[in-house]
Amino acid sequence: MGWQEQKKSLELDKVLSIRKEPYLNNETIAVLETQVDDMTAQAIAYTMEELLKHGALDVYTQAIGMKKSRSGILLTVICPCDRQAICEQVLFRETTTLGIRYRLQERKTLFREICEVETEYGKARVKIAWRDGFCTVQPEYEDCANLARSHNIPLIRVQDAVKSAGEISLQSRSLTENT
Amino acid sequence: MGWQEQKKSLELDKVLSIRKEPYLNNETIAVLETQVDDMTAQAIAYTMEELLKHGALDVYTQAIGMKKSRSGILLTVICPCDRQAICEQVLFRETTTLGIRYRLQERKTLFREICEVETEYGKARVKIAWRDGFCTVQPEYEDCANLARSHNIPLIRVQDAVKSAGEISLQSRSLTENT
Amino acid sequence: MGWQEQKKSLELDKVLSIRKEPYLNNETIAVLETQVDDMTAQAIAYTMEELLKHGALDVYTQAIGMKKSRSGILLTVICPCDRQAICEQVLFRETTTLGIRYRLQERKTLFREICEVETEYGKARVKIAWRDGFCTVQPEYEDCANLARSHNIPLIRVQDAVKSAGEISLQSRSLTENT
Amino acid sequence: MGWQEQKKSLELDKVLSIRKEPYLNNETIAVLETQVDDMTAQAIAYTMEELLKHGALDVYTQAIGMKKSRSGILLTVICPCDRQAICEQVLFRETTTLGIRYRLQERKTLFREICEVETEYGKARVKIAWRDGFCTVQPEYEDCANLARSHNIPLIRVQDAVKSAGEISLQSRSLTENT
Amino acid sequence: MGWQEQKKSLELDKVLSIRKEPYLNNETIAVLETQVDDMTAQAIAYTMEELLKHGALDVYTQAIGMKKSRSGILLTVICPCDRQAICEQVLFRETTTLGIRYRLQERKTLFREICEVETEYGKARVKIAWRDGFCTVQPEYEDCANLARSHNIPLIRVQDAVKSAGEISLQSRSLTENT
Amino acid sequence: MGWQEQKKSLELDKVLSIRKEPYLNNETIAVLETQVDDMTAQAIAYTMEELLKHGALDVYTQAIGMKKSRSGILLTVICPCDRQAICEQVLFRETTTLGIRYRLQERKTLFREICEVETEYGKARVKIAWRDGFCTVQPEYEDCANLARSHNIPLIRVQDAVKSAGEISLQSRSLTENT
Repeated sequence: MGWQEQKKSLELDKVLSIRKEPYLNNETIAVLETQVDDMTAQAIAYTMEELLKHGALDVYTQAIGMKKSRSGILLTVICPCDRQAICEQVLFRETTTLGIRYRLQERKTLFREICEVETEYGKARVKIAWRDGFCTVQPEYEDCANLARSHNIPLIRVQDAVKSAGEISLQSRSLTENT
Repeated sequence: MGWQEQKKSLELDKVLSIRKEPYLNNETIAVLETQVDDMTAQAIAYTMEELLKHGALDVYTQAIGMKKSRSGILLTVICPCDRQAICEQVLFRETTTLGIRYRLQERKTLFREICEVETEYGKARVKIAWRDGFCTVQPEYEDCANLARSHNIPLIRVQDAVKSAGEISLQSRSLTENT
Repeated sequence: MGWQEQKKSLELDKVLSIRKEPYLNNETIAVLETQVDDMTAQAIAYTMEELLKHGALDVYTQAIGMKKSRSGILLTVICPCDRQAICEQVLFRETTTLGIRYRLQERKTLFREICEVETEYGKARVKIAWRDGFCTVQPEYEDCANLARSHNIPLIRVQDAVKSAGEISLQSRSLTENT
Repeated sequence: MGWQEQKKSLELDKVLSIRKEPYLNNETIAVLETQVDDMTAQAIAYTMEELLKHGALDVYTQAIGMKKSRSGILLTVICPCDRQAICEQVLFRETTTLGIRYRLQERKTLFREICEVETEYGKARVKIAWRDGFCTVQPEYEDCANLARSHNIPLIRVQDAVKSAGEISLQSRSLTENT
Repeated sequence: MGWQEQKKSLELDKVLSIRKEPYLNNETIAVLETQVDDMTAQAIAYTMEELLKHGALDVYTQAIGMKKSRSGILLTVICPCDRQAICEQVLFRETTTLGIRYRLQERKTLFREICEVETEYGKARVKIAWRDGFCTVQPEYEDCANLARSHNIPLIRVQDAVKSAGEISLQSRSLTENT
Repeated sequence: MGWQEQKKSLELDKVLSIRKEPYLNNETIAVLETQVDDMTAQAIAYTMEELLKHGALDVYTQAIGMKKSRSGILLTVICPCDRQAICEQVLFRETTTLGIRYRLQERKTLFREICEVETEYGKARVKIAWRDGFCTVQPEYEDCANLARSHNIPLIRVQDAVKSAGEISLQSRSLTENT
């Protein structure tokens, strides 16, 4: 048997018929911001870890140019509203900041599910997200990194295999459920 | 005849007497934000183009430092409120993001007009903006770039000539209308 | 007498008993933002100075990637609500922008006080901030920089000495007031 | 017939037996650098285009913090040694710089070839690179972007299809040549 | 008399006939680099000042992403070879770095001269640089900033006036010397 | 007993008499550079880890603006000359790059030693570096982070205590050896 062009992306669309519910969720989150010019990169990285440990959804830094030629850092924290207080506490405890700006903001998120797939390198999880008219399959980084390290092969090769396995599993499910 | 110092900036102010209406407009726009750590620079640039094509007023990226040493990208989209839905759709289609933050925000914009001027290198458009007590003349980049390429001369020389022609034209108009 | 391990951090906590009032203040501030792609770094730095001179609380720049491969600048101004109008005026006067986005935002700030301390290198001010369960002492940069320059010693050595003196003075005060 | 897990990465390795020559090339290139603080983002982007048009292999900008709070740009040009003179000329013509640093530097490059593949969306080129023990297939961005735009589908879906077609074509070739 | 389009850029080229010598100089400079992750933005800015005071030609910072999610700073110093030792000393004194990378590098610089011009706002210096077939006139930032502050007018207006005066003065000189 | 101002920085200098050898070492290292525009932040972070695991001394990323509005990443690897080959191999295996630039470069490093100190929070290591006329004591980040986490106190407080203990231990040693 020769090599056949996969019709995967066309088939993939059938999967969408499985999910009748709306694929978008709306929620309110808190955004905290503070800029610092008298902290070290070490201490900022530690603060980021502490924030994630205390329930922040995401934390990121941006290099900013400040007065007096200072290349400071703007730290942004995105957290559920009920974690705002604890995240503020972490910021006032671990950073040198004297002020934190905050706001509530709306966020639209996709419905997603995690499932495990089997590849030639071992098992790994994928995140399946329902989008507007199609689905995407995103391999879980940590699982792929572990497989790549233990097999001593390029990460990208593992990610490709996991993504591929995720797409195939999604299609099988679609075929089954549509019969 | 010798070289005479232009009194252009003083004269320029007379132009303002032409415009009696307020020079500032207030409007509500939508700001969409999403940070990504599993997209390539190519795909992000493509997304920016698609967003502009679908009505975004401006789109920009910022390098951010994320958890686990990832140097991700924060993508910001500024669009009219009636383009928010389509821009969100583009984001969910072209990026790997699972969530988009959005907010409505006020924006003050200057009254501006586009007019064409003639220079020794050819025609080019300028954008004239009424500010608080004076006007500014900004050469249209694409026109200047085209003239610079076709004449094989530095862009800055074309921009200077176009700006100069724009200021002169603005002054003539002011003199005419004030007579 | 030998060298004794300082018990400073434990003692420092006693200081908190001095202050009975809440250590957090809530206030509303204005945030102005504008992105530019046709200004020079010189002109942006000048604008930052002018904004601070006219009452901005903080101003910072961020490198952004814009359409058509332009590496522009996002300029953010944080100011008291009663300085918003003048800061907008400075932006429309000193930058090429045609539009400014603005919003009111809440900010939590720590109660802080400035006091002067004496070190082996001379006098310097420190900023004392009451946090959740402890205090921090931050040396004033300008004072330390001046001492470092005049003594021709590393800045960090001066900052350490000033911070140390600040912590000792804070502890003495605590002991006195608690007696 | 059901969905079968592809054994593609294992098969792919066979392709390497085709190429007996060394896969790494060593060459000398010129690297030009200059930092600017009095140019606009527009003019820098124009300079980048001009440099690429005149034979630069790659050009990139980096945001830098300079003296007096200026957020300038470091412009780096990588070019073949015989294009150094013309690239310097472009820099002195299009930028405000008064000085250009340059050095010759060694570069190792992978052997690569371009070939065209057929997908359900149309034809596109892929770049095949021989690495240490395996090959990679990289879809040509412009081709994928064109297909995505004309079919109105996500870029990533086209890139996946093109990459997949490239890998399949590479494997067929391997099988044929090894028979 | 009406407004006449200036033929300035054409005339400007005549200036070049004044200067018979080559307009490019080649020199060797030292480049020092060090990355830090445990310094504050304040201390880095102080170090930059100290380096410039001790003879560095230019100093700049770049935000870098380091291991363990640290957003550190790469500090680059460009100095004459005979200032390398003192600049290294400043780096080891003012930064926390344990290692400095250094190299000698070639640099091409343009012949330039400083001269003073008179404008409606007062006197200011301009830097005239001979380029390949034309000259550029760059207003000195500090002079323009001072005039803008004292007249309370936009910096860009002063810079335009100074540049214009510089170009006119250059042309007069050209005409005189060519007669 | 009252609080006494420590004379520590003066005493500290005596430590230098201990070390008679030169405090600076010169060595040759390899610097590898490559810029990428078609990798994800996840894959770049993984590559950084792999490089450090294979003997790189330091690895860092810089956000760069590339052609076609792409915000890519410049990856820099600093490694001992005998690790250059393996680091190149990791780059060609884990990144999408088709070319790596490399050069040998000189580096001056300070003599340093690691020793353990005891604080009220537990044991931690410090790095002592001999500089020009003085020593610096830098707390080991991982040790401090572990103590801060287990005691649930601010990282900065632990770092201050460890630094302080390191300075005191250094002074004791100095006094002993100088007697």
